[in-house]
Amino acid sequence: MITVLRYGHRAVRDKRTTTHVGLVARTFGADRFIVVGSDSVPVNTVNNVTERWGGDFKAEKVKDWRSFLKNFKGIRIHLTMYGKPLSEVIEKLQTYKKEDVLIFIGAEKVPADVYETCEFNVAVGNQPHSEIAALAIFLDRFTGGKWEKKKFKDAKLVIKPQERGKKMESF
Amino acid sequence: MITVLRYGHRAVRDKRTTTHVGLVARTFGADRFIVVGSDSVPVNTVNNVTERWGGDFKAEKVKDWRSFLKNFKGIRIHLTMYGKPLSEVIEKLQTYKKEDVLIFIGAEKVPADVYETCEFNVAVGNQPHSEIAALAIFLDRFTGGKWEKKKFKDAKLVIKPQERGKKMESF
Repeated sequence: MITVLRYGHRAVRDKRTTTHVGLVARTFGADRFIVVGSDSVPVNTVNNVTERWGGDFKAEKVKDWRSFLKNFKGIRIHLTMYGKPLSEVIEKLQTYKKEDVLIFIGAEKVPADVYETCEFNVAVGNQPHSEIAALAIFLDRFTGGKWEKKKFKDAKLVIKPQERGKKMESF
Repeated sequence: MITVLRYGHRAVRDKRTTTHVGLVARTFGADRFIVVGSDSVPVNTVNNVTERWGGDFKAEKVKDWRSFLKNFKGIRIHLTMYGKPLSEVIEKLQTYKKEDVLIFIGAEKVPADVYETCEFNVAVGNQPHSEIAALAIFLDRFTGGKWEKKKFKDAKLVIKPQERGKKMESF
């Protein structure tokens, strides 16, 4: 099981980016999305998407993120531009594929102890870009691109891919 | 040359997501980022990152995006969840690697004529997620993961990857 934890979410400023993180987690093969804090908006948005688009992805909130992180049984991976390049660590990470995995994603500055607590600090490029993109590329590599074949069961909405225009089926 | 065009940017609502699109374009191998409209904020933010972190990426604004799109000499690729799956079209797209490529990224609803004008409508998954993630995965596949080795010349800031903590050099 893959859990994505979003740290440092600020209700107004990060509303859209935190929602993007959650939807990327769902699309690219994570099972659960946890937002730190008391803002229900991104959690509800992501759960509404799952309700309509299928699958059994779960979004929820956590208040005491530090004890959640410390007590997590499994491998904790912090995505940070300061970490080791993904290509250098991906083979090692994949040996943990069958364990529970926590992916820690920061918005605002991440406290120093997170770098210590997590088993891995991994950089998807050492340039400033986007935690949303970092998560997508990380999950793509970690799951071996499996998202491309992923089925979302009990979907009420399904897109029929087209060369031109838009086609969607409702159930 | 790869140009990323951001359509539908709304100054307040999309401030952070449009900046993420631009920084992803820069990190993952595009050469130019164009934001539709009159808001200079994301353009300046991206150019400031290039100034400090190196490379010759350029961000700019365009007002008449429709004539820019129509008159673009090269291959126009619209990233949309309604398009053909990336894995089905990527081989064909790569035959255009040496031509100029425009990647069209929407924020708000994209007008129907964009689907007609662009040579390709491509879906990075047919699930709702994030145009930021879609662009990252698209550029990763299109350039064959070349971003992992990309050098950003004349950088004033360079990260030294670490297993723990943060290390950055200034020049």
